[in-house]
Amino acid sequence: MISVDAMGGDRGPAAIVAGIEQSCDKNPEIRFIVHGPEPELRRLIGRRREIADRCVIRHAPGVVSMTDKPSQVIRSAQDTSMWSAVESVRNGEATVAVSCGNTGALMALSMLRLRKLPGVARPAIAILWPSRNPTGFNVMLDVGADIKADATDLLQYALMGASYARNGLGLDRPRVGLLNVGTEEHKGRAELKEAQELVAAAAPRGQFDYVGFVEGSDLMSDRVDVIVTDGFTGNIALKAGEGTAKLVGDFLKEAFANSIMSKFAALLAMTSLKRLQKRIDPRRVNGGVFLGLNGTVVKSHGSADATGLSAAIKLAFQLAKSGFHERLAARVAQAAEQAAAAPAPGATHAPTGDSA
Amino acid sequence: MISVDAMGGDRGPAAIVAGIEQSCDKNPEIRFIVHGPEPELRRLIGRRREIADRCVIRHAPGVVSMTDKPSQVIRSAQDTSMWSAVESVRNGEATVAVSCGNTGALMALSMLRLRKLPGVARPAIAILWPSRNPTGFNVMLDVGADIKADATDLLQYALMGASYARNGLGLDRPRVGLLNVGTEEHKGRAELKEAQELVAAAAPRGQFDYVGFVEGSDLMSDRVDVIVTDGFTGNIALKAGEGTAKLVGDFLKEAFANSIMSKFAALLAMTSLKRLQKRIDPRRVNGGVFLGLNGTVVKSHGSADATGLSAAIKLAFQLAKSGFHERLAARVAQAAEQAAAAPAPGATHAPTGDSA
Repeated sequence: MISVDAMGGDRGPAAIVAGIEQSCDKNPEIRFIVHGPEPELRRLIGRRREIADRCVIRHAPGVVSMTDKPSQVIRSAQDTSMWSAVESVRNGEATVAVSCGNTGALMALSMLRLRKLPGVARPAIAILWPSRNPTGFNVMLDVGADIKADATDLLQYALMGASYARNGLGLDRPRVGLLNVGTEEHKGRAELKEAQELVAAAAPRGQFDYVGFVEGSDLMSDRVDVIVTDGFTGNIALKAGEGTAKLVGDFLKEAFANSIMSKFAALLAMTSLKRLQKRIDPRRVNGGVFLGLNGTVVKSHGSADATGLSAAIKLAFQLAKSGFHERLAARVAQAAEQAAAAPAPGATHAPTGDSA
Repeated sequence: MISVDAMGGDRGPAAIVAGIEQSCDKNPEIRFIVHGPEPELRRLIGRRREIADRCVIRHAPGVVSMTDKPSQVIRSAQDTSMWSAVESVRNGEATVAVSCGNTGALMALSMLRLRKLPGVARPAIAILWPSRNPTGFNVMLDVGADIKADATDLLQYALMGASYARNGLGLDRPRVGLLNVGTEEHKGRAELKEAQELVAAAAPRGQFDYVGFVEGSDLMSDRVDVIVTDGFTGNIALKAGEGTAKLVGDFLKEAFANSIMSKFAALLAMTSLKRLQKRIDPRRVNGGVFLGLNGTVVKSHGSADATGLSAAIKLAFQLAKSGFHERLAARVAQAAEQAAAAPAPGATHAPTGDSA
């Protein structure tokens, strides 16, 4: 069961419902709890039999807007669709929540209601990034849950990111790198040198390979699967990359619109250009996953259309099916035990499966 | 007079001399001092009359390699071409030095020999970035001179970056933004909030407009001309953007090589594709400028070919001709005076021209 916040996206609830419809078409197994003002949702969903049967509507009249401050939202947003969507994960009705709303508010609310996993100091947002790897993607985290991260946080990001790559990309032994200004060991900030040692030491038991420092140019390289960084740097790298891809794409369009000959060429190359567009389409990788909480939340782009939302739902469904959350929690608990050297008996209730 | 380090680039001195030759063809005014092992340089330069007349060869047998640590270089590199190239600026023979060598070593050596400008705590490396602006470029700094920057450093970067945009891009009143994870005033790290106030207060006398916080996606936007950030974040943003542009370019090539039809289309669209390639060609914007020293140093890409080096030389020549260094020094001195509230009489020797 996937919990979907129908409100708060730039394109309104109709785009969200269209995304749900796309997902229903593609996957007969998915069921939804859809949160928002009931009359509006009933009007959008009710007339489509094939999706109405698979959606439970949960009334929530309030909407968190893009400009609301997280601190306000956590005090007064109990009646909103975002709150209600997260609540469905908290009370176990749904496995994963999906929202297009305000990122800061969604993270604050998720932290408040779901609480951090034992052993996690700072949750992280992980994204998939188009790369030269056979899977087509790299994982990068944190891209903006928090603006700071010390060495221990970076270690946790490494564990969580490796777990995400295993379950989300199907990699047995993900290669993890720490983002820095150069690959030489003496480079970078103090916390990175400290994290370097922690992550290298955790690699054997965490079942990942530590490849050392990686650079901004490695975001799309095939020498790493998981790129670990603080949320400030990760957010700026993500947006710099997205912005550059968009710029090149726009320049390409201008180039082809330049003359009759080039317009004709574009027509001939249509299939190839469409494939290129698909390869770098940000909608395909739509969905930042909040890691480190007692429950999984997928943040979709605010401007996501039906295709974008359907990609986020697909990701949510895949994570729900793979039992990702339990596996990740077990990994983090195991690492926390090791760090504590003398494991507390209370921390051993989590299964320590090897494929988390 | 431009001082050129002929050694230390990935392609060896032949590529450097070829770049000098390209520059000579394009611009009859430029003269060079070329630093490196004399026999080798004489062999490369001597046989070409048209450039031999315009180059002074300065013998320096040693070479700084890409793997040399900056700390070693400043202790023992007196016989190298890099040292000699910087020395020509120090003793006034040349206005600007150009090197393709090891960035860390070049910066360490430039700081040691040229010394920091009075009032500058941390020098910065500024680059030009392809953008949607009418000039075609934005300035970003620091991209890796230092991994840290406090609020006062960021203010100095803003002043130096604005001066660079005025002289390098010909903008009367550059728009300056601070790189952050969001544009809202409450976002980001403490030093950014403090820098925000300092930069806004300095804008009227510094003759630039402060546009507030900008995001990673603004690196190529037309709402800002100068993007100010610390060297850690700037370096990663730069490489993430460059890497993404290269990835999209490679995907594009693959798309066109995909079928006979698309190969034919590529042929038809050749002119347009070439124009696109030129627009995003990193060689065109080759040259990070070291700001905040008593002298100007241009760092060219290590892998620069003749075209790349010629772009770096063109930039160096433009900065030399515009009297950029004196203007920038005056700006920084003026700001330092203002900061000191009671200007020291000794600091007023610098001209306080309004167009720096």
